[in-house]
Amino acid sequence: MPAAASLPVAEYRSRTARAQQAMAAQGIAALLLTSEPDVRYFTGFLTRFWESPTRPWFLVLPATGVPVAVIPAIGAELMGQSWITDIRSWDAPDYADDGVGLLAETLVKLVPPGGRIGVPMGRESVLRMPLADWERLTLILADRPRVDASPLLRDLQMVKSEAEIALIRRICDIGGRAFSRVPEVARPGVTLAQLFRCFQGLLLEEGADWVSYLAGGAAQGGYGDVISPAHDRPLTPGDLVMLDTGAVRHGYFCDFDRNWSVGPASEELRAAHRILWEATERAAEAARPGARACDLHAAMLPLLARHNAGPVTGRLGHGLGMRLTEPPSLIPADETELRAGIVLTLEPSLVLGPGRMMVQEENIVIREDRVEWLTPRAPQDLPELEWGA
Amino acid sequence: MPAAASLPVAEYRSRTARAQQAMAAQGIAALLLTSEPDVRYFTGFLTRFWESPTRPWFLVLPATGVPVAVIPAIGAELMGQSWITDIRSWDAPDYADDGVGLLAETLVKLVPPGGRIGVPMGRESVLRMPLADWERLTLILADRPRVDASPLLRDLQMVKSEAEIALIRRICDIGGRAFSRVPEVARPGVTLAQLFRCFQGLLLEEGADWVSYLAGGAAQGGYGDVISPAHDRPLTPGDLVMLDTGAVRHGYFCDFDRNWSVGPASEELRAAHRILWEATERAAEAARPGARACDLHAAMLPLLARHNAGPVTGRLGHGLGMRLTEPPSLIPADETELRAGIVLTLEPSLVLGPGRMMVQEENIVIREDRVEWLTPRAPQDLPELEWGA
Repeated sequence: MPAAASLPVAEYRSRTARAQQAMAAQGIAALLLTSEPDVRYFTGFLTRFWESPTRPWFLVLPATGVPVAVIPAIGAELMGQSWITDIRSWDAPDYADDGVGLLAETLVKLVPPGGRIGVPMGRESVLRMPLADWERLTLILADRPRVDASPLLRDLQMVKSEAEIALIRRICDIGGRAFSRVPEVARPGVTLAQLFRCFQGLLLEEGADWVSYLAGGAAQGGYGDVISPAHDRPLTPGDLVMLDTGAVRHGYFCDFDRNWSVGPASEELRAAHRILWEATERAAEAARPGARACDLHAAMLPLLARHNAGPVTGRLGHGLGMRLTEPPSLIPADETELRAGIVLTLEPSLVLGPGRMMVQEENIVIREDRVEWLTPRAPQDLPELEWGA
Repeated sequence: MPAAASLPVAEYRSRTARAQQAMAAQGIAALLLTSEPDVRYFTGFLTRFWESPTRPWFLVLPATGVPVAVIPAIGAELMGQSWITDIRSWDAPDYADDGVGLLAETLVKLVPPGGRIGVPMGRESVLRMPLADWERLTLILADRPRVDASPLLRDLQMVKSEAEIALIRRICDIGGRAFSRVPEVARPGVTLAQLFRCFQGLLLEEGADWVSYLAGGAAQGGYGDVISPAHDRPLTPGDLVMLDTGAVRHGYFCDFDRNWSVGPASEELRAAHRILWEATERAAEAARPGARACDLHAAMLPLLARHNAGPVTGRLGHGLGMRLTEPPSLIPADETELRAGIVLTLEPSLVLGPGRMMVQEENIVIREDRVEWLTPRAPQDLPELEWGA
């Protein structure tokens, strides 16, 4: 059962029951889900086939009972290995009707006229189906209002179960082992592009199923941004190198980075690394049930503001789980109350000068009485890659 | 310049000019693009950061002049390395207004009242922004009708330039070299999950930037489907093993597979492999400018129908390029006329029995007078992995 191998069926039943409880409280008759993590959250349906944009996939969560999958025939075999028993499929792509009729029929039967259909419409959500098909569907369902299900799903998915935390810890361990082996491959003559390839290989060797995200940089005295693909220039003494990975095991992500100095580090870089380390420490101290996401931002801000060239912008961390980035955001505007089981990244950064920055990122889980580090903590001192002449 | 490294700026200028020509013909005053491949198509903006669902990204293509990027501040540095000069950014995530105001302002200025705004709404498209923000935007732009830009983009993106074909050929070569090394790693005791990890490592070693897609199977006498992740069972004599990869180099995909018998192959599997090989041959013979996508389906169908257990369903190939799967689809309903420069996968499959199938996939490009194979052709005879006792 590859599809459901990562978590026991009880987990999916429990998620469904909790969603249905929230739906009842909010007067939602059914959820309509279209995105990979939302469908997987309730079914365990795990496939990289979502990489193909050709076909839409639908999951309908009724007010009671098990979810109904309305999916392309190509996925019926795999979905059949999950706990879902009501699987309705069509031979996609179908240019006349790519599942809309089957989906509408399903919703009309499960939701009485006037019943509200919850669809994720808010922050960080995407409706993964063609807009023209959505508009066609809303015409058929004109007497069943659509409401935003994003808050409901956010609440539900933000708090992780012990089984989920164990999976995230595992991929963090894998990432940690791969990072510790970077000095094996970051040798004189190696370009950043080659380092990216080698590092992905290390992640796979250490047990990642795949590597959905890798960004980084290597430049003199700091990198220009944190989302770039690799360049083809060999690493050079004086470069600050950073690798930031979202590797995946059993469908759960880590998201953390590490920095190295190529050869001896300048005092500026050493100081910046220590400040960022201290910032994650302060955020971790502030992170407890009852604190708010913005409190973690506030805990890091004074230290960063004191050393940053220019105003501190952007978020300083975020949620993590089945997605590389999830709610909440560590920004002043996010007042999400932290609860035990919320997994976060702490991601302070410093601008050192024009086009020169440094970022550190760690992953934690909020516990009742403390924070648990999921990533092996970065060293306080910026590590140096030995570089022969 | 990592962002624009893969293609010369002239390519992006030419794409923009051709889009604007088509827009003029269709009375479209501006295109609004939100998806990774659409934004990259006109800018060269290449980053794996799209993996994060948190932030929307917008590109506006006006009737004349260069595209305008309306993007989160975190991407401004990287976009600034492209040929795009008009970059408007905001500090995302912004819970009060996550770019909608800035985008609306941009569109209002570029498009006069009554002007039509083209947005991809059709097959294989997704609007990558929260639905609530989209609805807010349409209210602001109420006097500027939205029209479906999918046909325009499909026409434009389907025909590849020589530079694009060279990139696809390169990643196909990389995939071919990795496939040729599978016998190095598929040894007794290895599970399918381990084989998946090793194979991704081979792809990276051979030069892939990353591996966006890998599916496959290993089961006695044929696999159950072609989209599953790997199971943890060791490969066993009698298994038919298949790996199907969408690896990426400079943002362009290959998409092909290979099959092996673990130990000596049964006559049934050997015959099926030869039939599938013959099917790709027949499709390639039919593939020329002026033929339609459905003609390639028709060229394969009789042979497959004669040997298939049950009716032949699903598509038998598709377009390929900046996405793992692109239009057209090799299905009876797709009458897209093939033109020189269209890159296709040929992907015939055979159902051998309940839960047992075999798929072969190759990549080709349509030339004026012939077909060019981009993948090193699979052998006619099913290769066997030597398997000690």
